Amino acid sequence: MPIEHSLIPFFNPQGVVVIGASNDPSKLGYGLANNLVRSNYQGAVHFVNIKGGELLGQPIYTNVLEVPNPVDLAAVLIPAPYVADALRQCGQRGIQAAIIGSGGFREVGAEGAELEEAIMEVASQYHIRLIGPNCIGLLDTHLPIDTTFLPPPGPTPGDVAFISHSGAICAAVIDWARGQGYGLSRLLSLGNQADVNETDTLAPVAADPYTRVLALYLEGVNDGRRFIDQARQVVHDKPIIALKVGRFKSGQRAVASHTGALAGQESAYSAAFRRAGVLRAETSEEMFDQARALAWCPPTRGRRVAVLTNAGGPGVTAADALESLGLELAEFSGETRAALAGILPPAASLHNPVDMLASATPDQFAESLRIVLADSGVDSVMIIFPTPPLFTAGSVAKAIIPVIHSAEKPVVVAVMGERLIQEAVEHLRAAHVPEYRFAERAAAALAALVERAELLEYAQAEPVMPVQSSEALKTSEISALLEAYGIPVAKMELAKSSDEAVAFARQMGLPVALKVASPGISHKSDVGGVLLNLGDEAAVRTGYAEILQRAQSAHPQAEIQGVYVQRMIPSGQEVIAGAVQDPQFGAQMMFGSGGTEVEGLKDIAFGLAPLTKLEAERMLESTWAGRKLKGFRNLPAADRDAVLDILFRLAQLAAEHPSLEEIEINPLLVLPVGQGAVAVDVRIQAKHE
Amino acid sequence: MPIEHSLIPFFNPQGVVVIGASNDPSKLGYGLANNLVRSNYQGAVHFVNIKGGELLGQPIYTNVLEVPNPVDLAAVLIPAPYVADALRQCGQRGIQAAIIGSGGFREVGAEGAELEEAIMEVASQYHIRLIGPNCIGLLDTHLPIDTTFLPPPGPTPGDVAFISHSGAICAAVIDWARGQGYGLSRLLSLGNQADVNETDTLAPVAADPYTRVLALYLEGVNDGRRFIDQARQVVHDKPIIALKVGRFKSGQRAVASHTGALAGQESAYSAAFRRAGVLRAETSEEMFDQARALAWCPPTRGRRVAVLTNAGGPGVTAADALESLGLELAEFSGETRAALAGILPPAASLHNPVDMLASATPDQFAESLRIVLADSGVDSVMIIFPTPPLFTAGSVAKAIIPVIHSAEKPVVVAVMGERLIQEAVEHLRAAHVPEYRFAERAAAALAALVERAELLEYAQAEPVMPVQSSEALKTSEISALLEAYGIPVAKMELAKSSDEAVAFARQMGLPVALKVASPGISHKSDVGGVLLNLGDEAAVRTGYAEILQRAQSAHPQAEIQGVYVQRMIPSGQEVIAGAVQDPQFGAQMMFGSGGTEVEGLKDIAFGLAPLTKLEAERMLESTWAGRKLKGFRNLPAADRDAVLDILFRLAQLAAEHPSLEEIEINPLLVLPVGQGAVAVDVRIQAKHE
Repeated sequence: MPIEHSLIPFFNPQGVVVIGASNDPSKLGYGLANNLVRSNYQGAVHFVNIKGGELLGQPIYTNVLEVPNPVDLAAVLIPAPYVADALRQCGQRGIQAAIIGSGGFREVGAEGAELEEAIMEVASQYHIRLIGPNCIGLLDTHLPIDTTFLPPPGPTPGDVAFISHSGAICAAVIDWARGQGYGLSRLLSLGNQADVNETDTLAPVAADPYTRVLALYLEGVNDGRRFIDQARQVVHDKPIIALKVGRFKSGQRAVASHTGALAGQESAYSAAFRRAGVLRAETSEEMFDQARALAWCPPTRGRRVAVLTNAGGPGVTAADALESLGLELAEFSGETRAALAGILPPAASLHNPVDMLASATPDQFAESLRIVLADSGVDSVMIIFPTPPLFTAGSVAKAIIPVIHSAEKPVVVAVMGERLIQEAVEHLRAAHVPEYRFAERAAAALAALVERAELLEYAQAEPVMPVQSSEALKTSEISALLEAYGIPVAKMELAKSSDEAVAFARQMGLPVALKVASPGISHKSDVGGVLLNLGDEAAVRTGYAEILQRAQSAHPQAEIQGVYVQRMIPSGQEVIAGAVQDPQFGAQMMFGSGGTEVEGLKDIAFGLAPLTKLEAERMLESTWAGRKLKGFRNLPAADRDAVLDILFRLAQLAAEHPSLEEIEINPLLVLPVGQGAVAVDVRIQAKHE
Repeated sequence: MPIEHSLIPFFNPQGVVVIGASNDPSKLGYGLANNLVRSNYQGAVHFVNIKGGELLGQPIYTNVLEVPNPVDLAAVLIPAPYVADALRQCGQRGIQAAIIGSGGFREVGAEGAELEEAIMEVASQYHIRLIGPNCIGLLDTHLPIDTTFLPPPGPTPGDVAFISHSGAICAAVIDWARGQGYGLSRLLSLGNQADVNETDTLAPVAADPYTRVLALYLEGVNDGRRFIDQARQVVHDKPIIALKVGRFKSGQRAVASHTGALAGQESAYSAAFRRAGVLRAETSEEMFDQARALAWCPPTRGRRVAVLTNAGGPGVTAADALESLGLELAEFSGETRAALAGILPPAASLHNPVDMLASATPDQFAESLRIVLADSGVDSVMIIFPTPPLFTAGSVAKAIIPVIHSAEKPVVVAVMGERLIQEAVEHLRAAHVPEYRFAERAAAALAALVERAELLEYAQAEPVMPVQSSEALKTSEISALLEAYGIPVAKMELAKSSDEAVAFARQMGLPVALKVASPGISHKSDVGGVLLNLGDEAAVRTGYAEILQRAQSAHPQAEIQGVYVQRMIPSGQEVIAGAVQDPQFGAQMMFGSGGTEVEGLKDIAFGLAPLTKLEAERMLESTWAGRKLKGFRNLPAADRDAVLDILFRLAQLAAEHPSLEEIEINPLLVLPVGQGAVAVDVRIQAKHE
């Protein structure tokens, strides 16, 4: 995957100038200079400060124009009002990449926002790429380079890259990772993202050979579709796991449909991450727990886990944890059980979870692990043990590590305790074996490996776009628009009098349904504006009057255009299919149980438009409405293929008409297998431009 | 709460004899003797071993009969086959309490089970109470006493009591707690529970003045109703939090109703814990995270949390975590905002979460905390910070601790990082302030405090039993049974011919419904065995024939008794109300969306019979079916009070008839407000005895 040329100086600079370097150790400008020198960066290092002087054995230039070659990256840490000038001098000096650590820009209000615009003007004039402002900086433990101003020590070298919208989280993660015994390959704090954003950095960070997994702390993304596009390419080689925060901020907007009320920013992010093949972590700890497993374990082929333990209690906890995450306890073959019986005492439990008993020796741990790994019904293994009473936990760790290293299946370890297990933990960390204190977290790591395998398929799937030509259509003609996309709509005529209603009914054939026609009335049946199954002309005539009267008394202000007449459709399963435009990711699809109780039942699933086959299938299978299409007890199977086809078409329509803010078919009536499905009622909310 | 007299020697023995004490340091019998002496236990300590000798400066008696006074507790750690004899000698010596650490009993199979029965016979003969066998033992860090054989060090003294069905988990928890910086008051490993079980120990452990919270690791409970009864009394003074494991084992049994298919062991445990006021933890870490907050924090009055931080990112994470747990960000008063403005820089965010900026001083942390605590709209506070760039985390901790100690509201702290925050962590632990590394876990601790407050109400609520006299009734007469409990049942007559069906229909008044009468056909509508709304006699006549024909072709083997004739009931909301007998906890109730799709929609809630008002309300409010009873859009409100009344009556019926394994009303038709509800179809599965 190609790397944007202009970003190369950030990740492999020939020389770095620290603008705002200080020889006062209490200043951040000293910290930055010191980190850069201590990091063992092999390129040239230069310092600039208007006061001049000397720092760490080098001169401090008073102006960046004086700095000698080579220099292609500036790390700027001076008060906000002076940054624009410094940047201009960088441009004049030919430096086209700058990391602006200084705060005091957009994040502090209108005045700061003006300063930020000013630096962007200079950057644009001199074609300078910017990271920040208001960021902690960037570091690479292998190049190595450290342009942060954080107090040492920096992270130990490792294989997890961390890209973050929050600088404070970066600082905490460096410290926490060190304590947790794993290293970072690269760390990138993006600050206000005046220029470079999270999406820009995916490809360059993934290109690092030392990076095996990318962990992202996101407060949002800047360009949803571009994020998906870039991430999809990256995850092919390297997993991405992301924590998206800011859920509590997601405000409610005025909506005109069930889909609009239920689809939100968070469902859009989940759908987008799935489309991109990005794992979504729920908590910070989970993100790094799972990142370690993703970095260090071979891929898994399935959900069948073997559990090895030296006590009953931990085995039970492990089995519970696996089951609650949708994993399965592997069923061992007869050979596996026989082999285990050959090395374990008679009282040991040979069924999964394997309880090797408290007396289990390090050799029995290692040999039992070898045996269960060899079983073709086992996809991965969890070993869970408190300190054995007769051996040290460290001796168990040392015995199992070579077996884990030679395995082609993932093995994770839960070592229970804290002080007595330190040696074991250190061996496992040094050997890059994911280790946790509790079964629940080890199980979550295995589940992440399974999800990674599934997400790879999602990222590789291509959207289904059944419609060849997508002519622009007048959106006022709802039925015509849907029909142009090949979505069958129940024929409906607008009657402006009861005579007209009767005439239409006669022409269509009885029985018919009547529905009030009024743009101001969102939910027709709520006001008694729908009458079904009218079997004769008299019923149509009185129905017409009745609907008008009910609608007027419920909505005296609403403009009522008349009453729609529609031929009654044979009964079928009522589902809802809708789309709303998400500001980040474009059209988002919803499918589920239809009717008036959509928001109460919440039997719904979301996906990003246009839909892939995989995603559409998932939407059906994760809802009761979708599962029911296959038939249930006395409910006959319905035309599931027709529903899939209509979902693809509606998704394409929504993707190609971003001005349609909400489109909803409710009900979409699904007829028996082979007979298709029909949009009975359709609502569209278009942008007023 | 009174303590069973016979258990007192376990918790306050006058003298302890170690039977199986060994002077070989590689033996567990040495470990036990050594732990007992090292624990600084103030009573008499005696050793017994058939080999005799000397140990830790004391003689080893060869027989327990030789042991001098005082001695009222035996700790036994000799091979299983010798335990019965040793116990007999204890009885002869007048010792009536014994902790049997030895393994080799029921847990190893039939032979061991026989040995276990043998020791129980001796125990019964001499009125000896037993803990174990196959357990780690018991310790009390304040008395102090340590009768475990675990390798030292034991736990530091503290206020969390731990009662466990797994010995291995005990060992791990002692070690883990030490590393996590909290102490234990008492620890109790129950082993095989041949005599004393978890329920027996609740009151004596809670009576310990040093214990502020009880944490339970349960693989089940022995007598469900007694557990509820004991726990309800304990939680009044001291919170109980329990991890119930073994979910994956919960097998499926053959069931005859939707309720039977959906209600299970886990829903029964959840309902029982709620009834008892016991918090249910999902993971081991969660249990101890929350136990600390329960032990150390004052009670909370509500869900409104103030968040104080020195950076934007952590504030966002905290807000997300709180929201996802159903807590709320408090809205500050004008005075609070003004007071914060008075001490914080202009760029600080004064709205919740409060971002005091990276420059925040320890004094600003303390003063801001004081300000938000004083706001009457704030129920609790979370402080979250990575190490501030200009101060140590420790100095922040020292500044806030006095404010936290003087507060009457809970304050929890998330200090982010690991190495740089060690001093802060130590200060907070020493001060008994719950501290976590991540906002998500701190939020969960606050949520546990809210749940604790709610559960106290559940534990105090009393069941509603509307029925005065509950005569024993012949269960074959379903309608009579329900009517005796005041549950209205739609009148139904069994017709054995089409003539009879027509006669019944004429007598009841048309329209009627017809339903196949066959004990072998569980779900009548699945086989087309139900016809609704038959408006004339001809329809009844052909309907009768049609139903018989359909039922016979679907179930050629089923005995068909005829067709039930039922007067059609005006339409209403269809709900399901059912009960199943749980082997541990007795009758368990289910309520939710009725019809044929119960198991697909899964819009259901469970509760323990008989029901309290609080629990019945919760069952309605946690299902869409229940919320809908209040009316929704064009759906009119239904007779919610009638549903509550019927739930109470059905619960009383189920509680008073344990031989009825399943009772299910589906649908229970709920009519408009004031018009009641009617059981339209009822199924009962009785025990075959």
